[in-house]
Amino acid sequence: MSEIKTVRIMEKISGANDVIAAENQERLQQADVGMLNLMSSPGAGKTTLLERTFEQLAGKSIRAAVIEGDVETSHDAERLQRFGIPLVQINAPTCYLSAPMISRALDQLDLAQLDLIFIENIGNLICPAGAKTGEDAKVMLLSATEGHEKPLKYPRMFVECQALIINKIDLIPYTNFDLQQAEANARKINPALKIFRVSSTTGEGIEDWVEYLTTVL
Amino acid sequence: MSEIKTVRIMEKISGANDVIAAENQERLQQADVGMLNLMSSPGAGKTTLLERTFEQLAGKSIRAAVIEGDVETSHDAERLQRFGIPLVQINAPTCYLSAPMISRALDQLDLAQLDLIFIENIGNLICPAGAKTGEDAKVMLLSATEGHEKPLKYPRMFVECQALIINKIDLIPYTNFDLQQAEANARKINPALKIFRVSSTTGEGIEDWVEYLTTVL
Repeated sequence: MSEIKTVRIMEKISGANDVIAAENQERLQQADVGMLNLMSSPGAGKTTLLERTFEQLAGKSIRAAVIEGDVETSHDAERLQRFGIPLVQINAPTCYLSAPMISRALDQLDLAQLDLIFIENIGNLICPAGAKTGEDAKVMLLSATEGHEKPLKYPRMFVECQALIINKIDLIPYTNFDLQQAEANARKINPALKIFRVSSTTGEGIEDWVEYLTTVL
Repeated sequence: MSEIKTVRIMEKISGANDVIAAENQERLQQADVGMLNLMSSPGAGKTTLLERTFEQLAGKSIRAAVIEGDVETSHDAERLQRFGIPLVQINAPTCYLSAPMISRALDQLDLAQLDLIFIENIGNLICPAGAKTGEDAKVMLLSATEGHEKPLKYPRMFVECQALIINKIDLIPYTNFDLQQAEANARKINPALKIFRVSSTTGEGIEDWVEYLTTVL
Protein backbone atom coordinates (compact mmCIF):
# COMPACT_ATOMS: atom_id res chain seq x y z
CA MET A 1 0.00 0.00 0.00
CA SER A 2 2.65 2.48 1.03
CA GLU A 3 4.65 2.12 -2.17
CA ILE A 4 1.67 3.11 -4.29
CA LYS A 5 0.82 5.98 -1.97
CA THR A 6 4.28 7.46 -2.40
CA VAL A 7 4.05 7.33 -6.17
CA ARG A 8 0.75 9.21 -6.16
CA ILE A 9 2.22 11.95 -4.01
CA MET A 10 5.12 12.42 -6.41
CA GLU A 11 2.72 12.75 -9.33
CA LYS A 12 0.55 15.25 -7.53
CA ILE A 13 3.54 17.48 -6.83
CA SER A 14 4.74 17.16 -10.42
CA GLY A 15 1.34 18.15 -11.84
CA ALA A 16 1.18 21.39 -9.87
CA ASN A 17 4.90 21.88 -10.36
CA ASP A 18 4.74 21.78 -14.16
CA VAL A 19 2.31 24.71 -14.33
CA ILE A 20 4.72 26.94 -12.40
CA ALA A 21 7.67 25.57 -14.39
CA ALA A 22 5.96 26.72 -17.61
CA GLU A 23 5.44 30.17 -16.08
CA ASN A 24 9.13 30.33 -15.13
CA GLN A 25 10.13 29.37 -18.66
CA GLU A 26 7.85 32.01 -20.22
CA ARG A 27 9.29 34.65 -17.91
CA LEU A 28 12.87 33.68 -18.76
CA GLN A 29 12.17 33.61 -22.50
CA GLN A 30 10.69 37.10 -22.37
CA ALA A 31 13.83 38.31 -20.58
CA ASP A 32 16.04 36.33 -23.02
CA VAL A 33 17.73 34.45 -20.18
CA GLY A 34 18.80 30.80 -20.40
CA MET A 35 18.61 28.47 -17.40
CA LEU A 36 20.46 25.22 -16.72
CA ASN A 37 19.45 22.76 -14.01
CA LEU A 38 22.58 21.03 -12.61
CA MET A 39 21.86 17.78 -10.77
CA SER A 40 23.96 15.02 -9.21
CA SER A 41 24.54 12.86 -6.15
CA PRO A 42 25.88 14.68 -3.11
CA GLY A 43 29.58 15.38 -3.54
CA ALA A 44 29.81 14.78 -7.30
CA GLY A 45 31.37 18.22 -7.73
CA LYS A 46 28.65 20.66 -8.85
CA THR A 47 30.06 23.64 -6.95
CA THR A 48 33.65 22.98 -8.01
CA LEU A 49 32.48 22.70 -11.64
CA LEU A 50 30.78 26.09 -11.25
CA GLU A 51 34.00 27.57 -9.84
CA ARG A 52 35.97 26.36 -12.89
CA THR A 53 33.12 27.54 -15.16
CA PHE A 54 33.11 31.07 -13.73
CA GLU A 55 36.90 31.26 -14.08
CA GLN A 56 36.45 30.56 -17.79
CA LEU A 57 33.43 32.86 -18.16
CA ALA A 58 35.38 35.80 -16.64
CA GLY A 59 36.89 36.60 -20.05
CA LYS A 60 33.57 36.18 -21.89
CA SER A 61 30.53 38.43 -22.16
CA ILE A 62 28.07 35.98 -20.58
CA ARG A 63 26.40 37.47 -17.49
CA ALA A 64 25.49 34.55 -15.25
CA ALA A 65 23.86 33.99 -11.85
CA VAL A 66 23.49 30.95 -9.59
CA ILE A 67 20.51 29.64 -7.63
CA GLU A 68 21.90 27.38 -4.89
CA GLY A 69 19.77 24.64 -3.38
CA ASP A 70 20.76 23.02 -0.09
CA VAL A 71 18.96 21.29 2.75
CA GLU A 72 21.18 23.22 5.18
CA THR A 73 24.05 25.77 5.06
CA SER A 74 25.07 28.24 2.36
CA HIS A 75 28.63 26.89 2.02
CA ASP A 76 28.33 26.37 -1.71
CA ALA A 77 27.01 29.88 -2.38
CA GLU A 78 29.83 31.29 -0.23
CA ARG A 79 32.40 29.51 -2.40
CA LEU A 80 31.02 31.41 -5.42
CA GLN A 81 30.89 34.86 -3.82
CA ARG A 82 34.40 35.74 -5.06
CA PHE A 83 33.10 35.86 -8.65
CA GLY A 84 30.86 38.83 -7.82
CA ILE A 85 27.88 37.16 -9.46
CA PRO A 86 24.24 37.32 -8.32
CA LEU A 87 23.60 34.40 -5.93
CA VAL A 88 20.33 33.19 -4.49
CA GLN A 89 20.36 30.55 -1.73
CA ILE A 90 17.37 28.26 -1.27
CA ASN A 91 17.38 26.20 1.93
CA ALA A 92 14.63 23.63 1.64
CA PRO A 93 13.78 20.60 3.77
CA THR A 94 13.14 18.62 0.59
CA CYS A 95 15.09 16.39 -1.78
CA TYR A 96 14.73 18.66 -4.86
CA LEU A 97 14.11 22.25 -5.92
CA SER A 98 10.54 22.73 -7.12
CA ALA A 99 9.36 25.20 -9.77
CA PRO A 100 7.67 27.40 -7.12
CA MET A 101 10.96 27.63 -5.21
CA ILE A 102 12.74 28.65 -8.42
CA SER A 103 9.98 31.18 -9.11
CA ARG A 104 10.72 32.84 -5.76
CA ALA A 105 14.45 32.77 -6.49
CA LEU A 106 13.84 34.45 -9.87
CA ASP A 107 12.05 37.25 -7.98
CA GLN A 108 15.40 37.98 -6.31
CA LEU A 109 17.27 38.37 -9.61
CA ASP A 110 17.38 41.28 -12.08
CA LEU A 111 16.70 39.25 -15.22
CA ALA A 112 17.38 42.23 -17.51
CA GLN A 113 21.02 42.08 -16.38
CA LEU A 114 21.48 38.35 -17.04
CA ASP A 115 22.13 35.93 -19.90
CA LEU A 116 22.30 32.65 -18.02
CA ILE A 117 21.19 31.15 -14.70
CA PHE A 118 22.66 27.98 -13.21
CA ILE A 119 20.51 26.06 -10.76
CA GLU A 120 22.65 23.95 -8.44
CA ASN A 121 20.00 21.49 -7.36
CA ILE A 122 19.98 19.53 -4.08
CA GLY A 123 22.32 16.53 -4.21
CA ASN A 124 20.04 13.68 -5.20
CA LEU A 125 19.64 11.29 -8.16
CA ILE A 126 15.95 10.57 -7.71
CA CYS A 127 13.70 13.45 -6.62
CA PRO A 128 14.96 16.25 -8.92
CA ALA A 129 14.85 14.09 -12.07
CA GLY A 130 11.13 14.51 -12.72
CA ALA A 131 10.65 18.01 -11.31
CA LYS A 132 10.76 20.66 -14.03
CA THR A 133 11.88 24.12 -12.94
CA GLY A 134 11.48 25.96 -16.24
CA GLU A 135 15.06 25.24 -17.31
CA ASP A 136 16.27 25.11 -20.93
CA ALA A 137 18.33 22.03 -20.21
CA LYS A 138 18.96 19.56 -17.43
CA VAL A 139 22.58 18.63 -16.90
CA MET A 140 23.74 15.77 -14.75
CA LEU A 141 27.12 15.28 -13.13
CA LEU A 142 28.29 11.74 -12.52
CA SER A 143 31.44 11.41 -10.47
CA ALA A 144 33.74 8.66 -11.75
CA THR A 145 34.00 7.40 -8.17
CA GLU A 146 30.27 6.57 -8.15
CA GLY A 147 30.63 3.71 -10.64
CA HIS A 148 29.81 3.13 -14.29
CA GLU A 149 26.53 1.26 -13.65
CA LYS A 150 24.70 4.35 -12.34
CA PRO A 151 22.79 5.11 -15.60
CA LEU A 152 21.13 1.69 -15.32
CA LYS A 153 20.25 2.17 -11.65
CA TYR A 154 18.89 5.73 -11.92
CA PRO A 155 17.53 5.74 -15.50
CA ARG A 156 15.02 8.57 -15.10
CA MET A 157 17.76 11.09 -14.34
CA PHE A 158 19.64 10.06 -17.50
CA VAL A 159 16.45 10.12 -19.61
CA GLU A 160 15.55 13.63 -18.47
CA CYS A 161 18.96 15.24 -19.03
CA GLN A 162 20.26 16.77 -22.24
CA ALA A 163 23.89 16.67 -21.10
CA LEU A 164 26.00 14.45 -18.85
CA ILE A 165 29.26 15.54 -17.29
CA ILE A 166 31.42 12.62 -16.19
CA ASN A 167 33.43 14.39 -13.50
CA LYS A 168 36.57 13.53 -11.48
CA ILE A 169 38.06 11.67 -14.45
CA ASP A 170 41.49 12.32 -12.83
CA LEU A 171 40.51 9.70 -10.20
CA ILE A 172 39.70 6.95 -12.74
CA PRO A 173 43.19 5.33 -12.51
CA TYR A 174 42.58 4.66 -8.80
CA THR A 175 39.13 3.07 -9.24
CA ASN A 176 37.50 0.28 -11.26
CA PHE A 177 35.42 2.87 -13.17
CA ASP A 178 35.08 1.96 -16.88
CA LEU A 179 34.58 5.21 -18.82
CA GLN A 180 33.53 3.50 -22.09
CA GLN A 181 31.04 1.34 -20.20
CA ALA A 182 29.65 4.36 -18.33
CA GLU A 183 29.07 6.20 -21.61
CA ALA A 184 27.57 3.11 -23.25
CA ASN A 185 25.21 2.64 -20.28
CA ALA A 186 24.17 6.30 -20.44
CA ARG A 187 23.59 6.21 -24.21
CA LYS A 188 21.56 3.00 -23.88
CA ILE A 189 19.17 4.98 -21.65
CA ASN A 190 19.37 8.22 -23.65
CA PRO A 191 21.00 8.02 -27.11
CA ALA A 192 20.82 11.82 -27.63
CA LEU A 193 22.77 12.61 -24.45
CA LYS A 194 25.66 15.05 -24.94
CA ILE A 195 28.56 13.71 -22.83
CA PHE A 196 31.52 15.68 -21.43
CA ARG A 197 34.56 14.14 -19.75
CA VAL A 198 35.71 16.58 -17.11
CA SER A 199 38.14 16.97 -14.24
CA SER A 200 37.46 20.09 -12.23
CA THR A 201 40.78 19.41 -10.46
CA THR A 202 43.03 19.34 -13.55
CA GLY A 203 40.75 21.51 -15.70
CA GLU A 204 40.44 18.84 -18.41
CA GLY A 205 37.25 19.18 -20.45
CA ILE A 206 36.15 22.49 -18.91
CA GLU A 207 36.58 24.42 -22.16
CA ASP A 208 34.26 22.07 -24.08
CA TRP A 209 31.66 22.43 -21.33
CA VAL A 210 31.89 26.23 -21.36
CA GLU A 211 31.60 26.15 -25.16
CA TYR A 212 28.38 24.13 -24.76
CA LEU A 213 26.95 26.81 -22.46
CA THR A 214 26.83 29.24 -25.38
CA THR A 215 24.42 26.86 -27.16
CA VAL A 216 21.74 27.17 -24.47
CA LEU A 217 21.75 30.99 -24.43
CA MET B 1 3.47 27.52 -0.75
CA SER B 2 4.98 24.45 -2.36
CA GLU B 3 7.89 24.20 0.08
CA ILE B 4 5.51 23.97 3.01
CA LYS B 5 3.30 21.46 1.20
CA THR B 6 6.23 19.12 0.64
CA VAL B 7 7.18 19.16 4.30
CA ARG B 8 3.67 18.17 5.34
CA ILE B 9 3.69 15.24 2.98
CA MET B 10 6.98 13.95 4.41
CA GLU B 11 5.54 14.12 7.94
CA LYS B 12 2.39 12.29 6.95
CA ILE B 13 4.40 9.42 5.47
CA SER B 14 6.65 9.28 8.54
CA GLY B 15 3.71 9.11 10.95
CA ALA B 16 2.17 6.07 9.26
CA ASN B 17 5.63 4.67 8.64
CA ASP B 18 6.62 4.64 12.31
CA VAL B 19 3.71 2.40 13.29
CA ILE B 20 4.81 -0.28 10.82
CA ALA B 21 8.46 0.24 11.81
CA ALA B 22 7.55 -0.57 15.43
CA GLU B 23 5.76 -3.72 14.24
CA ASN B 24 8.83 -4.76 12.25
CA GLN B 25 11.04 -4.20 15.29
CA GLU B 26 8.75 -6.26 17.54
CA ARG B 27 8.75 -9.09 15.01
CA LEU B 28 12.54 -9.08 14.75
CA GLN B 29 13.01 -8.98 18.52
CA GLN B 30 10.74 -11.97 18.95
CA ALA B 31 12.81 -13.86 16.39
CA ASP B 32 16.05 -12.57 17.99
CA VAL B 33 17.25 -11.06 14.70
CA GLY B 34 19.21 -7.80 14.47
CA MET B 35 18.72 -5.38 11.57
CA LEU B 36 21.05 -2.66 10.25
CA ASN B 37 19.92 0.06 7.88
CA LEU B 38 22.81 1.03 5.56
CA MET B 39 22.42 4.42 3.89
CA SER B 40 24.58 6.65 1.69
CA SER B 41 24.74 8.72 -1.48
CA PRO B 42 24.64 6.72 -4.71
CA GLY B 43 28.01 5.13 -5.36
CA ALA B 44 29.46 5.51 -1.87
CA GLY B 45 30.19 1.79 -1.79
CA LYS B 46 27.41 0.06 0.18
CA THR B 47 27.43 -3.11 -1.95
CA THR B 48 31.21 -3.39 -2.00
CA LEU B 49 31.27 -2.98 1.79
CA LEU B 50 28.74 -5.83 2.03
CA GLU B 51 30.94 -8.00 -0.21
CA ARG B 52 33.94 -7.44 2.10
CA THR B 53 31.69 -7.96 5.12
CA PHE B 54 30.39 -11.32 3.91
CA GLU B 55 33.95 -12.45 3.12
CA GLN B 56 34.79 -11.81 6.80
CA LEU B 57 31.55 -13.32 8.11
CA ALA B 58 32.18 -16.57 6.20
CA GLY B 59 34.38 -17.83 9.04
CA LYS B 60 31.96 -16.70 11.75
CA SER B 61 28.68 -18.14 12.98
CA ILE B 62 26.54 -15.10 12.10
CA ARG B 63 23.74 -16.00 9.72
CA ALA B 64 22.95 -12.86 7.73
CA ALA B 65 20.59 -11.79 4.95
CA VAL B 66 20.34 -8.66 2.77
CA ILE B 67 17.32 -6.61 1.72
CA GLU B 68 18.36 -4.64 -1.37
CA GLY B 69 16.63 -1.39 -2.29
CA ASP B 70 16.95 0.06 -5.79
CA VAL B 71 14.89 2.27 -8.04
CA GLU B 72 15.74 -0.06 -10.92
CA THR B 73 17.81 -3.22 -11.56
CA SER B 74 18.93 -5.98 -9.21
CA HIS B 75 22.67 -5.55 -9.98
CA ASP B 76 23.61 -5.11 -6.33
CA ALA B 77 21.73 -8.20 -5.19
CA GLU B 78 23.35 -10.20 -8.03
CA ARG B 79 26.80 -9.19 -6.76
CA LEU B 80 25.95 -10.79 -3.40
CA GLN B 81 24.51 -14.06 -4.77
CA ARG B 82 27.90 -15.79 -4.58
CA PHE B 83 27.72 -15.75 -0.79
CA GLY B 84 24.69 -18.05 -0.81
CA ILE B 85 22.82 -15.77 1.59
CA PRO B 86 19.09 -15.00 1.57
CA LEU B 87 18.52 -11.90 -0.64
CA VAL B 88 15.36 -9.86 -1.10
CA GLN B 89 15.23 -7.22 -3.83
CA ILE B 90 12.90 -4.24 -3.47
CA ASN B 91 12.46 -2.12 -6.60
CA ALA B 92 10.64 1.04 -5.63
CA PRO B 93 9.99 4.29 -7.52
CA THR B 94 10.83 6.23 -4.35
CA CYS B 95 13.87 7.80 -2.75
CA TYR B 96 13.87 5.58 0.38
CA LEU B 97 12.73 2.22 1.70
CA SER B 98 9.67 2.57 3.92
CA ALA B 99 8.76 0.37 6.89
CA PRO B 100 5.86 -1.26 4.93
CA MET B 101 8.29 -2.20 2.15
CA ILE B 102 10.62 -3.75 4.73
CA SER B 103 7.65 -5.56 6.27
CA ARG B 104 6.93 -7.22 2.93
CA ALA B 105 10.61 -8.10 2.53
CA LEU B 106 10.63 -9.71 6.00
CA ASP B 107 7.73 -11.91 4.81
CA GLN B 108 10.17 -13.37 2.27
CA LEU B 109 12.77 -14.34 4.88
CA ASP B 110 12.87 -17.27 7.31
CA LEU B 111 13.66 -15.26 10.44
CA ALA B 112 14.24 -18.40 12.53
CA GLN B 113 17.31 -19.11 10.38
CA LEU B 114 18.83 -15.63 10.74
CA ASP B 115 20.88 -13.56 13.20
CA LEU B 116 21.28 -10.35 11.24
CA ILE B 117 19.64 -8.50 8.34
CA PHE B 118 21.37 -5.74 6.37
CA ILE B 119 19.12 -3.26 4.59
CA GLU B 120 20.94 -1.65 1.67
CA ASN B 121 18.77 1.43 1.33
CA ILE B 122 18.28 3.47 -1.86
CA GLY B 123 21.23 5.79 -2.55
CA ASN B 124 20.10 9.07 -1.04
CA LEU B 125 21.20 11.35 1.83
CA ILE B 126 17.83 12.99 2.45
CA CYS B 127 14.73 10.79 2.17
CA PRO B 128 15.88 7.69 4.10
CA ALA B 129 17.23 9.69 7.07
CA GLY B 130 13.87 10.16 8.79
CA ALA B 131 12.17 6.94 7.73
CA LYS B 132 12.44 4.24 10.37
CA THR B 133 12.27 0.66 9.14
CA GLY B 134 12.41 -1.16 12.48
CA GLU B 135 16.21 -1.40 12.42
CA ASP B 136 18.42 -1.70 15.51
CA ALA B 137 20.87 0.80 14.11
CA LYS B 138 21.25 3.15 11.19
CA VAL B 139 24.67 3.19 9.57
CA MET B 140 25.80 5.76 7.06
CA LEU B 141 28.58 5.46 4.50
CA LEU B 142 30.35 8.64 3.46
CA SER B 143 32.75 8.26 0.56
CA ALA B 144 35.92 10.31 1.01
CA THR B 145 35.43 11.60 -2.54
CA GLU B 146 32.17 13.32 -1.49
CA GLY B 147 33.93 15.92 0.67
CA HIS B 148 34.41 16.53 4.39
CA GLU B 149 31.64 19.18 4.67
CA LYS B 150 28.80 16.68 4.06
CA PRO B 151 27.83 16.29 7.76
CA LEU B 152 27.05 20.02 7.87
CA LYS B 153 25.03 19.90 4.64
CA TYR B 154 22.99 16.79 5.43
CA PRO B 155 22.77 16.98 9.25
CA ARG B 156 19.66 14.87 9.70
CA MET B 157 21.33 11.79 8.27
CA PHE B 158 24.24 12.19 10.68
CA VAL B 159 21.91 12.83 13.64
CA GLU B 160 19.87 9.70 12.95
CA CYS B 161 22.79 7.29 12.54
CA GLN B 162 24.55 5.35 15.28
CA ALA B 163 27.58 4.61 13.13
CA LEU B 164 29.42 6.32 10.27
CA ILE B 165 31.72 4.52 7.86
CA ILE B 166 34.10 6.86 6.08
CA ASN B 167 34.73 4.77 2.98
CA LYS B 168 37.23 4.89 0.10
CA ILE B 169 39.96 6.21 2.42
CA ASP B 170 42.49 4.82 -0.10
CA LEU B 171 41.46 7.70 -2.43
CA ILE B 172 42.14 10.47 0.13
CA PRO B 173 45.69 11.20 -1.16
CA TYR B 174 44.20 12.13 -4.56
CA THR B 175 41.53 14.49 -3.18
CA ASN B 176 41.30 17.50 -0.88
CA PHE B 177 39.31 15.45 1.66
CA ASP B 178 40.31 16.27 5.26
CA LEU B 179 39.63 13.17 7.39
CA GLN B 180 40.04 14.95 10.75
CA GLN B 181 37.71 17.72 9.61
CA ALA B 182 35.13 15.22 8.35
CA GLU B 183 35.11 13.45 11.70
CA ALA B 184 34.97 16.75 13.61
CA ASN B 185 32.03 17.89 11.44
CA ALA B 186 30.22 14.59 12.03
CA ARG B 187 30.82 14.69 15.80
CA LYS B 188 29.63 18.31 15.95
CA ILE B 189 26.27 17.06 14.60
CA ASN B 190 26.26 13.79 16.56
CA PRO B 191 28.82 13.46 19.39
CA ALA B 192 27.87 9.81 20.08
CA LEU B 193 28.54 8.68 16.51
CA LYS B 194 30.75 5.59 16.21
CA ILE B 195 33.13 6.24 13.30
CA PHE B 196 34.98 3.67 11.17
CA ARG B 197 37.68 4.49 8.61
CA VAL B 198 37.36 1.94 5.83
CA SER B 199 38.67 1.07 2.40
CA SER B 200 36.68 -1.71 0.78
CA THR B 201 39.39 -1.78 -1.91
CA THR B 202 42.40 -2.40 0.38
CA GLY B 203 40.37 -4.01 3.19
CA GLU B 204 41.55 -1.46 5.78
CA GLY B 205 39.12 -1.07 8.68
CA ILE B 206 36.83 -3.96 7.65
CA GLU B 207 37.71 -6.05 10.70
CA ASP B 208 36.71 -3.28 13.13
CA TRP B 209 33.43 -2.90 11.28
CA VAL B 210 32.69 -6.65 11.38
CA GLU B 211 33.57 -6.64 15.10
CA TYR B 212 30.97 -3.87 15.57
CA LEU B 213 28.32 -6.02 13.90
CA THR B 214 28.45 -8.46 16.81
CA THR B 215 27.37 -5.61 19.13
CA VAL B 216 24.01 -5.16 17.36
CA LEU B 217 23.09 -8.85 17.47
